[in-house]
Amino acid sequence: MTTLRTPGPTIGVVGGGQLGRMLAEAASPLGVEVVVLDPTPDCPAAPVVRDQIVADFDDEAGIRELAARADVLTFEIELADQDVLERVSEDSGTPVHPKPSTLRTIHDKLVQKRELEDAGIPVPPFRAVDDADDIRDAIDDYGAPVMLKARTGGYDGRGNVPVESKGDAEEALESVAGPAMVEAFVEFEREVSVIAVKGDDEIATFPLGENIHVDEILRETIVPARSSEAATERAYEVARDVLEVMDGRGVYGIELFQTPDGEILLNEIAPRPHNSGHWTIEGAHSSQFEQHARAVLGWPLGSTELRSPTALANLLADVEENRDAQLRHVDRVLETPGATLHWYGKRQARPGRKMGHVTVSGRDEDAAVEDLLETARELEDAVTFRSQ
Amino acid sequence: MTTLRTPGPTIGVVGGGQLGRMLAEAASPLGVEVVVLDPTPDCPAAPVVRDQIVADFDDEAGIRELAARADVLTFEIELADQDVLERVSEDSGTPVHPKPSTLRTIHDKLVQKRELEDAGIPVPPFRAVDDADDIRDAIDDYGAPVMLKARTGGYDGRGNVPVESKGDAEEALESVAGPAMVEAFVEFEREVSVIAVKGDDEIATFPLGENIHVDEILRETIVPARSSEAATERAYEVARDVLEVMDGRGVYGIELFQTPDGEILLNEIAPRPHNSGHWTIEGAHSSQFEQHARAVLGWPLGSTELRSPTALANLLADVEENRDAQLRHVDRVLETPGATLHWYGKRQARPGRKMGHVTVSGRDEDAAVEDLLETARELEDAVTFRSQ
Repeated sequence: MTTLRTPGPTIGVVGGGQLGRMLAEAASPLGVEVVVLDPTPDCPAAPVVRDQIVADFDDEAGIRELAARADVLTFEIELADQDVLERVSEDSGTPVHPKPSTLRTIHDKLVQKRELEDAGIPVPPFRAVDDADDIRDAIDDYGAPVMLKARTGGYDGRGNVPVESKGDAEEALESVAGPAMVEAFVEFEREVSVIAVKGDDEIATFPLGENIHVDEILRETIVPARSSEAATERAYEVARDVLEVMDGRGVYGIELFQTPDGEILLNEIAPRPHNSGHWTIEGAHSSQFEQHARAVLGWPLGSTELRSPTALANLLADVEENRDAQLRHVDRVLETPGATLHWYGKRQARPGRKMGHVTVSGRDEDAAVEDLLETARELEDAVTFRSQ
Repeated sequence: MTTLRTPGPTIGVVGGGQLGRMLAEAASPLGVEVVVLDPTPDCPAAPVVRDQIVADFDDEAGIRELAARADVLTFEIELADQDVLERVSEDSGTPVHPKPSTLRTIHDKLVQKRELEDAGIPVPPFRAVDDADDIRDAIDDYGAPVMLKARTGGYDGRGNVPVESKGDAEEALESVAGPAMVEAFVEFEREVSVIAVKGDDEIATFPLGENIHVDEILRETIVPARSSEAATERAYEVARDVLEVMDGRGVYGIELFQTPDGEILLNEIAPRPHNSGHWTIEGAHSSQFEQHARAVLGWPLGSTELRSPTALANLLADVEENRDAQLRHVDRVLETPGATLHWYGKRQARPGRKMGHVTVSGRDEDAAVEDLLETARELEDAVTFRSQ
């Protein structure tokens, strides 16, 4: 039986960015404390956590200190080092969730896709790339374009290069600069994602979200997704199968392609709360961050039910060059009923950087998600990081 | 126009109890930082605020330090000293909201009632008490019982003594031990409260809550209150009139009596977020804590609309003597759809002490508040601070 205490359990988090910050916001009402490890002094999570250990994500001494202060370790960035985490966890006896083995699988997109395919998860056709010939062979087999991906280190579309023709193969491979894989380009009708939670002996899924990307960066998420019932059910089924492959408790962001004929194919997995799940803070009865805290502690997961249809728009820095973070004209966001502003506490606005988000929740269950999306976009357009 | 920045503005809060903690939880998504001053090392707010200054609530040096670190000062307990706050604010240039003059009015229940009566606010008949004769005169005029109240320092019903007959007057007066006042005992049908917000040039009210007290301690709040439309409208009207008397921005908890014929009489005012407003965290589109942060900063207030009917049950320590705070059997709370647990981070469970609360939110707009109350009570009964 779960018992609340003071002081409560402490979650040690590798990474203190916005995900660590929102985790801390959600952990506090449960009496759960958070300590983060992050190399940036006064990182986004710092003002609302018990403490920040200033150290690199793979700094073993720092992670040992984190383990000594925590009841469980987790991570909010894939830059966490699975070997260091595994070693520290074994030595300290502080568990890590999700497991470092999961991080190892996910770190290398080729290994990830192979393991998922072996487990019967539908993935787009893919192959390893040793040289440009492999890309050209892929174009022969899958048709152009194909998607060349760095096997490690990519995020927000970085490290992903579409290859339009065989003649572009060499250049594309050089631009990736490292081990690569190639995938068939999926002509999807929409991208959707399932925020799924693996608990102690239960799993839970949040309602299906539909993601709207521009230039491969997630701009908006709407919930519920405009998918058919069959496609939605299939997405949950795939998500549950994915969780079977993942080792360790926690929240997983599972990005999926939905094809015009309703087929669901896995795109990518994040072994942590995900940008496309931020809508859960207002839109669901518990948030992905609360679920992550519950899961890594081995507590009951509870309800992930939809509260009302919700649209989320990311606030990306609309600047040409780096500058101090100042978001102007937020009055309209603050004044709009059902709109909620989330500021990530980053000091510097860099071109295209995610600085915060706006959620617009329906005022009842029957709110039309298109209307909410329209409002979210209007609010996103009303604010700016520029000084003008 | 409001601008978000990193670091954001800092609110300096006198008091670091659960109200300071929930304020910090609500301030973070707005990029607003919180520093608290509290004499208890590692007070409830400590794990989620930027910093705690360990000092007594009226410690002038401590409050000067707080003012130096803050953009605006506020308080979460009436034990804040109005004179010190006024002096420090004048010297430092850091504003205080609500104004110390409001605290001065509210500190002395007799002064408070006089000012409110002068402003045309309906209050129960009352008078000053210099000696037991004044109590006996009150019984002659208002009928028995009457309510004897300490003019200063009372809260949660402490310092309130019902006097059943003239023969009890002496003893009652001795038990209050200090300046007192006496009020007619109001035969109310229900106690309700309006959480009202005074902004820069606007005011807002949350939907009317109905409060259920046992032994003069607030046990449960349900929203919407089961009041008639006319009584509800009258409560908002009285609340708005009360805000006219109060000086300075912020959230005010306005407790009212509703008589069987629908009359509304003022009971008490708290110049801060109030226990009877904790339901707003889940039940409204913004919480009283977010509203307090916005108000003291002079930001737009936004929507205080109901999201769905909600019941709140306080978690009082069901212990016979002081012991370490451990709340057992919380699984059922964690597992119940629509239920949310709030832990205040107090280290010690003292008999009857408020240690946390449970909110049960309706899964749609039409949820019956009686059903929600029943669930909240079941959950309250399921948990315990006893070891058994």
